[in-house]
Amino acid sequence: MSQDKLTGAKVAEHNSKDSCWVIVHGKAYDVTEFLPEHPGGSKIILKYAGKDATEEFDPIHPPDTLDKFLDQSKHLGEVDMSTVEQEEKVFDPEEADRQVRIKQMPPLAACYNLMDFEAVARRVMKKTAWAYYSSGADDEITMRENHAAFHKIWFRPRVLVDVEHIDMSTTMLGDKCSIPFYVTATALGKLGHPEGEVVLTKAAKQHDVIQMIPTLASCSFDEIVDAKQGDQVQWLQLYVNKDRAITEKIVAHAEKRGCKGLFITVDAPQLGRREKDMRSKFSDVGSDVQSGESNVDRSQGAARAISSFIDPALSWKDIPWFRSITRMPIVLKGVQCVEDVLRAVEAGCDGVVLSNHGGRQLETARSGIEVLVEVMPALRERGWEKRIEVYVDGGVRRSTDIIKALCLGAKGVGIGRPFLYAMSAYGLDGVDRAMQLLKDEMEMNMRLIGATTIEELNPSLLDTRGLMGGHSGVIPSDTLGLGAYDPLEAPRFNEKAKL
Amino acid sequence: MSQDKLTGAKVAEHNSKDSCWVIVHGKAYDVTEFLPEHPGGSKIILKYAGKDATEEFDPIHPPDTLDKFLDQSKHLGEVDMSTVEQEEKVFDPEEADRQVRIKQMPPLAACYNLMDFEAVARRVMKKTAWAYYSSGADDEITMRENHAAFHKIWFRPRVLVDVEHIDMSTTMLGDKCSIPFYVTATALGKLGHPEGEVVLTKAAKQHDVIQMIPTLASCSFDEIVDAKQGDQVQWLQLYVNKDRAITEKIVAHAEKRGCKGLFITVDAPQLGRREKDMRSKFSDVGSDVQSGESNVDRSQGAARAISSFIDPALSWKDIPWFRSITRMPIVLKGVQCVEDVLRAVEAGCDGVVLSNHGGRQLETARSGIEVLVEVMPALRERGWEKRIEVYVDGGVRRSTDIIKALCLGAKGVGIGRPFLYAMSAYGLDGVDRAMQLLKDEMEMNMRLIGATTIEELNPSLLDTRGLMGGHSGVIPSDTLGLGAYDPLEAPRFNEKAKL
Amino acid sequence: MSQDKLTGAKVAEHNSKDSCWVIVHGKAYDVTEFLPEHPGGSKIILKYAGKDATEEFDPIHPPDTLDKFLDQSKHLGEVDMSTVEQEEKVFDPEEADRQVRIKQMPPLAACYNLMDFEAVARRVMKKTAWAYYSSGADDEITMRENHAAFHKIWFRPRVLVDVEHIDMSTTMLGDKCSIPFYVTATALGKLGHPEGEVVLTKAAKQHDVIQMIPTLASCSFDEIVDAKQGDQVQWLQLYVNKDRAITEKIVAHAEKRGCKGLFITVDAPQLGRREKDMRSKFSDVGSDVQSGESNVDRSQGAARAISSFIDPALSWKDIPWFRSITRMPIVLKGVQCVEDVLRAVEAGCDGVVLSNHGGRQLETARSGIEVLVEVMPALRERGWEKRIEVYVDGGVRRSTDIIKALCLGAKGVGIGRPFLYAMSAYGLDGVDRAMQLLKDEMEMNMRLIGATTIEELNPSLLDTRGLMGGHSGVIPSDTLGLGAYDPLEAPRFNEKAKL
Amino acid sequence: MSQDKLTGAKVAEHNSKDSCWVIVHGKAYDVTEFLPEHPGGSKIILKYAGKDATEEFDPIHPPDTLDKFLDQSKHLGEVDMSTVEQEEKVFDPEEADRQVRIKQMPPLAACYNLMDFEAVARRVMKKTAWAYYSSGADDEITMRENHAAFHKIWFRPRVLVDVEHIDMSTTMLGDKCSIPFYVTATALGKLGHPEGEVVLTKAAKQHDVIQMIPTLASCSFDEIVDAKQGDQVQWLQLYVNKDRAITEKIVAHAEKRGCKGLFITVDAPQLGRREKDMRSKFSDVGSDVQSGESNVDRSQGAARAISSFIDPALSWKDIPWFRSITRMPIVLKGVQCVEDVLRAVEAGCDGVVLSNHGGRQLETARSGIEVLVEVMPALRERGWEKRIEVYVDGGVRRSTDIIKALCLGAKGVGIGRPFLYAMSAYGLDGVDRAMQLLKDEMEMNMRLIGATTIEELNPSLLDTRGLMGGHSGVIPSDTLGLGAYDPLEAPRFNEKAKL
Repeated sequence: MSQDKLTGAKVAEHNSKDSCWVIVHGKAYDVTEFLPEHPGGSKIILKYAGKDATEEFDPIHPPDTLDKFLDQSKHLGEVDMSTVEQEEKVFDPEEADRQVRIKQMPPLAACYNLMDFEAVARRVMKKTAWAYYSSGADDEITMRENHAAFHKIWFRPRVLVDVEHIDMSTTMLGDKCSIPFYVTATALGKLGHPEGEVVLTKAAKQHDVIQMIPTLASCSFDEIVDAKQGDQVQWLQLYVNKDRAITEKIVAHAEKRGCKGLFITVDAPQLGRREKDMRSKFSDVGSDVQSGESNVDRSQGAARAISSFIDPALSWKDIPWFRSITRMPIVLKGVQCVEDVLRAVEAGCDGVVLSNHGGRQLETARSGIEVLVEVMPALRERGWEKRIEVYVDGGVRRSTDIIKALCLGAKGVGIGRPFLYAMSAYGLDGVDRAMQLLKDEMEMNMRLIGATTIEELNPSLLDTRGLMGGHSGVIPSDTLGLGAYDPLEAPRFNEKAKL
Repeated sequence: MSQDKLTGAKVAEHNSKDSCWVIVHGKAYDVTEFLPEHPGGSKIILKYAGKDATEEFDPIHPPDTLDKFLDQSKHLGEVDMSTVEQEEKVFDPEEADRQVRIKQMPPLAACYNLMDFEAVARRVMKKTAWAYYSSGADDEITMRENHAAFHKIWFRPRVLVDVEHIDMSTTMLGDKCSIPFYVTATALGKLGHPEGEVVLTKAAKQHDVIQMIPTLASCSFDEIVDAKQGDQVQWLQLYVNKDRAITEKIVAHAEKRGCKGLFITVDAPQLGRREKDMRSKFSDVGSDVQSGESNVDRSQGAARAISSFIDPALSWKDIPWFRSITRMPIVLKGVQCVEDVLRAVEAGCDGVVLSNHGGRQLETARSGIEVLVEVMPALRERGWEKRIEVYVDGGVRRSTDIIKALCLGAKGVGIGRPFLYAMSAYGLDGVDRAMQLLKDEMEMNMRLIGATTIEELNPSLLDTRGLMGGHSGVIPSDTLGLGAYDPLEAPRFNEKAKL
Repeated sequence: MSQDKLTGAKVAEHNSKDSCWVIVHGKAYDVTEFLPEHPGGSKIILKYAGKDATEEFDPIHPPDTLDKFLDQSKHLGEVDMSTVEQEEKVFDPEEADRQVRIKQMPPLAACYNLMDFEAVARRVMKKTAWAYYSSGADDEITMRENHAAFHKIWFRPRVLVDVEHIDMSTTMLGDKCSIPFYVTATALGKLGHPEGEVVLTKAAKQHDVIQMIPTLASCSFDEIVDAKQGDQVQWLQLYVNKDRAITEKIVAHAEKRGCKGLFITVDAPQLGRREKDMRSKFSDVGSDVQSGESNVDRSQGAARAISSFIDPALSWKDIPWFRSITRMPIVLKGVQCVEDVLRAVEAGCDGVVLSNHGGRQLETARSGIEVLVEVMPALRERGWEKRIEVYVDGGVRRSTDIIKALCLGAKGVGIGRPFLYAMSAYGLDGVDRAMQLLKDEMEMNMRLIGATTIEELNPSLLDTRGLMGGHSGVIPSDTLGLGAYDPLEAPRFNEKAKL
Repeated sequence: MSQDKLTGAKVAEHNSKDSCWVIVHGKAYDVTEFLPEHPGGSKIILKYAGKDATEEFDPIHPPDTLDKFLDQSKHLGEVDMSTVEQEEKVFDPEEADRQVRIKQMPPLAACYNLMDFEAVARRVMKKTAWAYYSSGADDEITMRENHAAFHKIWFRPRVLVDVEHIDMSTTMLGDKCSIPFYVTATALGKLGHPEGEVVLTKAAKQHDVIQMIPTLASCSFDEIVDAKQGDQVQWLQLYVNKDRAITEKIVAHAEKRGCKGLFITVDAPQLGRREKDMRSKFSDVGSDVQSGESNVDRSQGAARAISSFIDPALSWKDIPWFRSITRMPIVLKGVQCVEDVLRAVEAGCDGVVLSNHGGRQLETARSGIEVLVEVMPALRERGWEKRIEVYVDGGVRRSTDIIKALCLGAKGVGIGRPFLYAMSAYGLDGVDRAMQLLKDEMEMNMRLIGATTIEELNPSLLDTRGLMGGHSGVIPSDTLGLGAYDPLEAPRFNEKAKL
């Protein structure tokens, strides 16, 4: 028995808001003062007060989190884990069903398109992980519109073009890639796969596509950069911290480690409310709480807003400062109307991503592809179309979606959730196949539209009248997308309540 | 045994249309002559002829009703309640199921938006109360359109605006409030909660929002005013009586008791037909009646129209008279086209509410938000936009809906049913949470749209093309709203009929 | 035993195409030569060859049919019915279920609108009768559009109009009626009710509305006219016979019997294919036939076309002749575009009915209400709007529908199927209630729209933009209408086939 | 025992990729070198390596396939079939269910329209055959749009036209036919019926309609031509081979055998991905394979593209060469925008088929009928409408569809799948009835629209506004079409997996 180590009993004494210790990977930490600042709320920590939180902690925090964000004085040292009481796992029938479904999972070769991965992931992922990945703002109208908007655009293909040789390679921010999509930044990769974002790094390498590294990754930034091979291109997605010194450090480090583009997220001054996610967390954390006002966490809205992780005061005035601290191309991620694109050009930005954050922020925000239709003519009118690269993300599921965006003038498109789903269900093989399917579709569809290179894609190949009528029309529905969608639910009645 | 009191047996003799006595709160009343005038029809009274009607009477009549509307000569005095025969309650399986559902009700914290309260209320409210609150005119197309119309309007948010500090306070009719919505007038609050409208008064105080007091409240007007605290602001919603002296008395009393605005309902010269409500009442009252013509209450349509409570002859000619009897600002509630808004300005009104009465009156009337789009440009064209305050009600469920109305030029929006549902399911705590959720959403969404004050909300933040195509389009549906909606039903076959 | 009477055995010998006798009401008829001319096809007669056909014959033929259409030489005289073999009724589980449903039928007072009658009728009518009444052409798209088109039109009501007194009476072709709808002509009333069309005559009288008598009534023309009371107004709907002498006789007789209007059907040069009806008949007649080509009645299409009942050669050239044989106002029923309305004015017609025959003839023909929108401006442009009365039928279910048609310029609307459904389910009481519901709705809705007389209805009270986008939009759906609709079915597999 | 014949054991030794022999109709073939070229992929052949493949081979290959495409040196001679091991058939519950359904099939006379055949075929066809016929590209949006687009076009019929005599005959490429549709080319007819395409030849003769012979027929070209009778007209559909000598031979042979038109397919430089078909094949071939990357046939996309059967390099430059090798009229099949139609005129083509290959190639390609609306005005503007014949195929199910296409300017329409379904379910009788139904509908609908000849069909008979709004609208749905549609499915979980 070690003399220096803390005992489980000692830690267990600190099990309340007033004194809260937790164990992570065999070490104890005093998080009492940190509780109100925790971006995920204090409640989830308090559930593990005085206990071992490793299993819950791991998938949603990079390994360097505690070192970075918790003062050394709060690191209480090693715990003799043999003295820590083991919690008996309660039998969870939902989890048992999930384990059965995992065993019955379709073979990877049965996935023929990106929506298939979503349909499989929905059934094999942990409920809370699924809820975090799949949820959107409010009624998820924008989230669904992102995909649907592509169906409002139809092709006007050309025939009798020699399409024997197809070249779908292009460049983004000056770097070459094999096909005009990139892996966009998505948070908390370890919720879906124990290795987290490095799985995406490896798949991106295999297919010669660019990866955008998220600020809120589960892996540490360095782990993700370390996983790259050769001249593989990576970009950095940035949430701007209230403390600009921290931000400067992050940017400088990324540039030093070879990142080739800085994507500043501008559509999230406050993280959105995602009710599917909240409901999933609620039933997790709140299952044994009584009804009543006292359980309503009033501060949560505000807490999210003043989180030091994301500065709601970020504004156009900050752009020159970013110019001054890095030579990486600067791209604004989350621009949503033509006025702001023009302003970005004037501010000297190198690019914009027309994006609504995957429908996770402002509800009834328009899809990126629709904004693109209003943006490009305004740029061309001013002769500015070469001064800025325009990207689109949100809802891309088919190579036809990619081609539509490029015909309209986008330089490339970002794809996020589909790769998370492929990774969650099938790991690296899944992401690999997802990318290969896109390439197969892309080659075929360029042939069918009568274009042999990316440069030949142009607006005359499209009929975009369907986008002109605002949003009151209904688009032709796809049964796959409808089947994969997980509809929101009203509060559930507890049918096992004692009567 | 009291000598002065009436016996149950005596009262029970008067159990027909020819002589009809009822007991309410231990006193007997002769309502024979009143039968044809009863706004709810005579049938429902006759069901209690010669009996104790207290339980049925209470939720739908203010306590001062009998004093006000029944001549003193018809007040027959106290009844010795020990002599009144107790009706044995018939076991009602639907009611038993409801009692189970009440015990299984989700905790309040599981409600994340205003539609969640509706979904819960639908299952825990009494069937007739639910039918009264939730029903609309004819096919309920307008009722549903009210909510759906907001989905036809999409955002054009601005990014990189410093949104650290959000101020969502505003003024309505000169009075301050914390957020630009008010609690609009809805009838018969005690159907949902034993305390009735005062619950809303208390919640309004907690959140510093304005309450509009309904003419047809279950609480008496004075009870509702008595419940206000400090400088809390209340308005009066007015149905104009055929006898203008009664109306003048009501208005003068309201002004004296401190009401700050007079909202004259102009969209209800006759109360609408709400079939869901009628069907629910029918099965209640008419369950043991035989099929056949004799049960068709021919007079009902007319009865409703000539009810002295609401004067169908009310017209523009009456407005000067209202001006002459009160100094309260005068607002016309229920205006539905631009022509009438312009006429209201010319008549010197202080405001209008663009409203279709929650879809309970004229079917296929347009939503208030759509009318707003035709109203504001006409006002601005004439430079009249400061001469009148324009409000909108109907279908508001999310803070995005509020923001859309304000961007288009509304001064504020009214919210009715959602607070009734929150109150019916969870009481004051429910209404409190509903209002807090709106505030949380409002703060977040103002950040996400890039506006820090109400003044900054303007039409360039919206894409309203979806409203231009008339009404033949379909809007993106929300699964919550669809799930909460209680569809109309065809007449039910009696599957237990003797064969 | 009568000596003069035929025996059942004798009749039974004539049981084939080569010699086909049938018994109707105790008399035998030789219909061998008539077989190919029978508008309903020969197969249905052959089913009763050599047998008593009374039960099948009655509901679909006026009592004077055999006298009128079968030469006296084919009337074989009385049959000794005691010698006719009684067919044992096979137990039909569907029919047994229907009998149960009839016993469980909701009381009449539970019907609150016209669609409720349809929902009840669907469950209590005989399958073949329901199929005949409810079916439409091809995919029934036009049939459903007729109702849906009204939902594309929304109100712009006026408030603060003195609406105490509502007068909804009007005139049609110079005759007064209490409300601007008439009972339009529909065939085979006895399928729904043993008394047939005279039920409608009586109800029309009770409500002071006009009835149009159908050529293909189950009652004889004279029976229907005999049933009218006092100055009740009736019109004649006319299918024009190839033999104009027959037509002239019919018209002259109608005028003599007091008909006030001649409605010539122009949208049915050939009766439409109604697959729901065909399928219902097929399973009736063809249940024991084997699969294979021989059962395909090739001649049926042609047979229908050359039926002498309806002359496909009827053309504009015939109009002057009609003018010459009657002083009744002449109205063309079934006009479907503005060009033909203008031509009708030039041809001196007194009216047109914009109608697609209840969606029973040409599929994807436009609704009458939509055609009205193109017709009235063209008439007004030429100053012809007083030279012709324009009527609309198809899909009218609510008084709001009637008001919309009148605002757009129609003189009145025809209502058909709803009264058949009311009659089939509840007899005269049903039709009476249906009409009363329309009147109650009409009075209320005129109040709510702010109009006190029919003359005040005008286009500024409507928003018709929803009609402008062609037919690709979806209209707000009504759950009642959707619930009442009986969708078409693919051929049914015989799950009881011997395997 | 024959001395010359190969033994089953000998053949069975060659059961791998390295040496692969198969038996077809009692003869052995060495297909080792052919494996990578097989258009259907190597996997399906390998399943039969060393075994008798006749049953699988027959329905998808014309009898002359092996002679034509496999070098004589690979023909190994006869096999002594008595020495070939018989595979025991595994009991397949799906197949057993299908056999039951075949016995319960509705009689042919119960099919009243073309969709009815599809509904029956779906339940009685082999799963893989159904999947091949019914599948479309990606989400099958274009496939469904093809049918739906006709519902966006509505009629403006004329009344009081003498329509006693209807003549619906016309000419196509100078040859007469009885009705303006032709049987378009569809591959692999023996999947649906053992006699394959000759069934269609016979039905076409019976109805005097033209048949287009597919390159990928299951019958050999000569078998199909041999089946024609008298002056029956046939056309040739052509996939252009990389080796133009082969193509020249095919064209010369077709002209010699009397083909009257050459339809060059231009919308399939690469065969489309049809996931329903792929999934059906997968479960067939891959049922016992393990999950994992190794099963992903990477080469498949490319393989399809470089298949020598179809030359992706085919271009406008080749048209003069076609002109030089044949005197048959040249028609481009699969043109999809007005620009290419004008180019076809300039290139001297005799016709175009506006087609998206039945929705099997490019997803969200527009329907032929919609392209027609943009094509004809451009031709008329240039006075070119007589220089080229314009055909449309895709989604035609009703005679109203045919009439709409002809009103808009098409010379005729092609119909494919419906006849395959009719043939698969009912053989020649089925196709015969399908054609007769179209004729019956056509005669009736020409009457109802007021046109007596094909020449009288013109754009003023239509309302095409529904096509103008792009593709965001929803069309009125037909319950038959919806019921017949087989929606795509996500990958299936194996619920019988060992747990």
